[in-house]
Amino acid sequence: MTRYLALEVIVGTFVLVQNGSPPYVRWSFRAGEPLGYAGSAMWNTAVLLIDCPDRKGLVAGVASLLYRYGANITHADQHQDQEAGLFFMRVEWSLDGFDLSVFRDEFRVMAADLRMRWRLELKTERLQVAIFVSQHLHCLADLLHRQQSGELHCSIPLIIGNHKDGEALANFYGVEFHYIPVTKHCKKEAEERQLQLLRERGINLVVLARYMQILSPEFVRQFPWQIINVHHSFLPAFIGARPYHAAFDRGVKLIGATSHYVTESLDEGPIIEQDVARISHRDEVPDLIQKGRDLERVVLSRAIMWHLDHRILGYGNKTVVFD
Amino acid sequence: MTRYLALEVIVGTFVLVQNGSPPYVRWSFRAGEPLGYAGSAMWNTAVLLIDCPDRKGLVAGVASLLYRYGANITHADQHQDQEAGLFFMRVEWSLDGFDLSVFRDEFRVMAADLRMRWRLELKTERLQVAIFVSQHLHCLADLLHRQQSGELHCSIPLIIGNHKDGEALANFYGVEFHYIPVTKHCKKEAEERQLQLLRERGINLVVLARYMQILSPEFVRQFPWQIINVHHSFLPAFIGARPYHAAFDRGVKLIGATSHYVTESLDEGPIIEQDVARISHRDEVPDLIQKGRDLERVVLSRAIMWHLDHRILGYGNKTVVFD
Amino acid sequence: MTRYLALEVIVGTFVLVQNGSPPYVRWSFRAGEPLGYAGSAMWNTAVLLIDCPDRKGLVAGVASLLYRYGANITHADQHQDQEAGLFFMRVEWSLDGFDLSVFRDEFRVMAADLRMRWRLELKTERLQVAIFVSQHLHCLADLLHRQQSGELHCSIPLIIGNHKDGEALANFYGVEFHYIPVTKHCKKEAEERQLQLLRERGINLVVLARYMQILSPEFVRQFPWQIINVHHSFLPAFIGARPYHAAFDRGVKLIGATSHYVTESLDEGPIIEQDVARISHRDEVPDLIQKGRDLERVVLSRAIMWHLDHRILGYGNKTVVFD
Amino acid sequence: MTRYLALEVIVGTFVLVQNGSPPYVRWSFRAGEPLGYAGSAMWNTAVLLIDCPDRKGLVAGVASLLYRYGANITHADQHQDQEAGLFFMRVEWSLDGFDLSVFRDEFRVMAADLRMRWRLELKTERLQVAIFVSQHLHCLADLLHRQQSGELHCSIPLIIGNHKDGEALANFYGVEFHYIPVTKHCKKEAEERQLQLLRERGINLVVLARYMQILSPEFVRQFPWQIINVHHSFLPAFIGARPYHAAFDRGVKLIGATSHYVTESLDEGPIIEQDVARISHRDEVPDLIQKGRDLERVVLSRAIMWHLDHRILGYGNKTVVFD
Repeated sequence: MTRYLALEVIVGTFVLVQNGSPPYVRWSFRAGEPLGYAGSAMWNTAVLLIDCPDRKGLVAGVASLLYRYGANITHADQHQDQEAGLFFMRVEWSLDGFDLSVFRDEFRVMAADLRMRWRLELKTERLQVAIFVSQHLHCLADLLHRQQSGELHCSIPLIIGNHKDGEALANFYGVEFHYIPVTKHCKKEAEERQLQLLRERGINLVVLARYMQILSPEFVRQFPWQIINVHHSFLPAFIGARPYHAAFDRGVKLIGATSHYVTESLDEGPIIEQDVARISHRDEVPDLIQKGRDLERVVLSRAIMWHLDHRILGYGNKTVVFD
Repeated sequence: MTRYLALEVIVGTFVLVQNGSPPYVRWSFRAGEPLGYAGSAMWNTAVLLIDCPDRKGLVAGVASLLYRYGANITHADQHQDQEAGLFFMRVEWSLDGFDLSVFRDEFRVMAADLRMRWRLELKTERLQVAIFVSQHLHCLADLLHRQQSGELHCSIPLIIGNHKDGEALANFYGVEFHYIPVTKHCKKEAEERQLQLLRERGINLVVLARYMQILSPEFVRQFPWQIINVHHSFLPAFIGARPYHAAFDRGVKLIGATSHYVTESLDEGPIIEQDVARISHRDEVPDLIQKGRDLERVVLSRAIMWHLDHRILGYGNKTVVFD
Repeated sequence: MTRYLALEVIVGTFVLVQNGSPPYVRWSFRAGEPLGYAGSAMWNTAVLLIDCPDRKGLVAGVASLLYRYGANITHADQHQDQEAGLFFMRVEWSLDGFDLSVFRDEFRVMAADLRMRWRLELKTERLQVAIFVSQHLHCLADLLHRQQSGELHCSIPLIIGNHKDGEALANFYGVEFHYIPVTKHCKKEAEERQLQLLRERGINLVVLARYMQILSPEFVRQFPWQIINVHHSFLPAFIGARPYHAAFDRGVKLIGATSHYVTESLDEGPIIEQDVARISHRDEVPDLIQKGRDLERVVLSRAIMWHLDHRILGYGNKTVVFD
Repeated sequence: MTRYLALEVIVGTFVLVQNGSPPYVRWSFRAGEPLGYAGSAMWNTAVLLIDCPDRKGLVAGVASLLYRYGANITHADQHQDQEAGLFFMRVEWSLDGFDLSVFRDEFRVMAADLRMRWRLELKTERLQVAIFVSQHLHCLADLLHRQQSGELHCSIPLIIGNHKDGEALANFYGVEFHYIPVTKHCKKEAEERQLQLLRERGINLVVLARYMQILSPEFVRQFPWQIINVHHSFLPAFIGARPYHAAFDRGVKLIGATSHYVTESLDEGPIIEQDVARISHRDEVPDLIQKGRDLERVVLSRAIMWHLDHRILGYGNKTVVFD
């Protein structure tokens, strides 16, 4: 089977060349080059995200306006929360030959009319991501590799650690690392330094990659729907100091992980992704912790990927993830 | 592919005939007959379940004793809870030509010596199962079909409902149905009637197949590790009246179900099995409930199957499930 | 936890009463009544399914037309297969006060213009489903219970068996059962009788619930995208007479099941749903078969539910399942 | 929840200190130190792996011998393949104060008597692992991080690439990297150089971390049950050059990955682990490939972990994985 995989890569290139410029092929498979994004041309799209009270004619209005401007739509999805009476929409279209600024002006009028909350994102503008880390490096290592290999379409200009453990990895991937210890007494100063760095680097997404500190409400308020965290989850939930030990004592058959946006309340924020792994009596606490780490890696990286792709719309304490 | 399946069945018969008496083939595939257990001869085994403080020589002791009596062991498994310092063992062996009563006497002495808790179960003795049900019949219908088709190796002589909804299904499968309504005022009398029926029918396992009443501590005390329940589970857990609505409002991405033994405390008893299903924003509350039902069916029937097979050893508030 | 569930049901009723007529609540939770569909009023919707070559303006066209007619859209989804250059759409809207026949006439013109393949389905018109079965009854029992409990929104007027095993279940659920044995020599006659029954009962969906016969191409041709089958699936695939034995010999760690539309070619048709279960060396062949049955139940019932909801669009040898 | 996690780490240390020397706690949680193995003392165990024709008295024999030598058994598991008439056993015990060489001599006699195939492994002797890689580095990066963080209990002295892509990662983790290109014409020479390196470094496990070359039968023969590979898996299986494209064209709803031992035949070797991920029509080929990579990472690392723990017993074309 190794042979087939090798062929796949070669044929992959061939197809890419032959097809000319397919509208949405995101990866190149060129033999002899690291896997990465296929030229920015492929990514020259806009994403429009809308949420508003549901009413008739919303899809017709947006779709007709885009049609009038000749938009070549590559993805569109909408959702209605019947109970809440809300409407959500995500449209992505090619910007080749599309006059965005004129469209934006006209859309703004329509949006005000229909009481839409909206944002317009350009795929060519990579998000600037900062990673916060403590001593457990499994998520950090995973994210840096995914970014380098082109899987995460973003820039990572900054890593902040309250321990020095992450520094070597940061250096290897060529990312600036700042060691900012946090204690009860210096927490305010530490957060101020963190915020200054985030501002200076133009960060618009903060990832808590197993960062073992609680951010203050003041900090969180500066990055609404822009801080993503990951933590373990259990059925039933265990509250307290040593959740894996509690789960072991209770003999659970599944352990889980949840990635979510961080909100001001100590309570958990809107869930983005969850997954579980099966456990048996043969798993001891270290096995639970190790399986938990694998879940955290996957669940956190999926959440980030969807955020970067502008697939997530938040409302209330929940999310719509257009997949 | 239909053809292959058909052949499988036919060849299945052929093999069974050809092999003579395989030691542990549990199903017959005879064309023209309903799927069922292959003669009781196949099931003429004993199961010994042991738990005790861990110490050296436990496996050697039990295995040597069985060897001296010429036991033909078909399954053996053991487990150590290192933290609790406990040892667990399950051995199953054929009773053909095995003098059980003499073995039992000698084993009793050894067990007392080593402070073992133990039970000796015969697979030929089917457990007598009573099913308690309210209005949701999906678990009841599932269990009755599994019992009839030979998948659940037990007798079901009794169904008790606090509503009449389950009566028609009970009649179809030829099982006695008793309608015992339960209100605040008659709860004590109702439980007394239930207990009398359980005693009269020699019930040794009570299955709460979505039975919407809390059993009193007095009731539960009479059936320790003999009452199995199923309920939904979420990450995070939702406590209160309408869990599926709470899960929907919170935008969870997974819903789950848990089967467990019922204990006296209102708190949940030892978990036997858990499973989850994936949810998206496109799932509305009724979808969550429907997926929850599918989980409940599977999770409850697995727990019962393992209990009937004497695979479960309980200790503290948890279980070892020898699979 | 039993208490909470009980409360859920009671509160469920309360909410339903209080809300008046929610647009899309599909289940009622009335205490004292079996779970079922909440009055047909809730189901008075139309579903429009479209597929056509992708081009600009498709969504705008359809959405604008529906808007002009005042449609209250409850669900809408679309999909583009970029590689194949195809567009797919599903829209569902309420028919209360909607003039369907005039809309249909105008839409027909637009559809011809844009080279759309389309169908317009009414949720109030229940599909007529026939179930074909042999000796394994687990899928049949599951489907009949789901239909009776209101989970499957269809009528099941007819069960055909090439063995008599399914007759008792059919009788219990009050469904006509026809025993039509199939041998090499009588296959043609058998299929003719089957087809006649299907025609007489106005069947528009045939479910092969572990029916161990291959339908002839002539038969299949009469029900394009209207026959759903379920079969086991493995990684790697095992071809031949005894797949579970082959999987056991190969030591697979997962077994699976696939539901799909039946096509003329002996090769497998378009996949609708798949799922897997985990296996270990402790699972013997009967365990594999039992876990396979659980998968078949779930995978087949999901496929049917989606078909009945008009959520599936087929093209080439694959499906789009709007979930 | 971040707070709880932080506490968990701190309390973890506390417990470790308090407990003195628990027999099988493998991880330390000391605040201020990288996560790693807790001193080699914890690992001073022997693992005995046995397989032989099944007969009475096997467990009794082995357990009694160990008991006579005063072995403190920490894990024991056995398995019978009823159909093949084979017996498998894995016992792990502490070597503190245990006279291994005398035990080994006596066991050797018993083993010859009972026609046992067996090996005796010491946990203190780390396996020497070589990783082969081509251009896709996701598995390599994952394995190197897991080894460094103490999750994989082995040494990795050698990485061999037929492309140079892996070199930077190798350098970062301080592992020797050899670039050995492979073409049709130089394949024999390349393999000779590879074999020489493997011999010089004392390698006893070769991991193909997405290595895109087929090893010759001569190469494979030198490392029986010592080469682990990972590849994608589908239901149904797709054979040929571009499996992900084939899976996409077929509209599969699941994709999978399999890790296995490499055998001489081009056919696939004994499966160690498998897992799947859910796919929908919204996933395009690059999404399939990305989800496939996530599966490969997890499935390969699990296989290696079990191999390093001496949990895998191979026979015929399958494995027993004692978990």
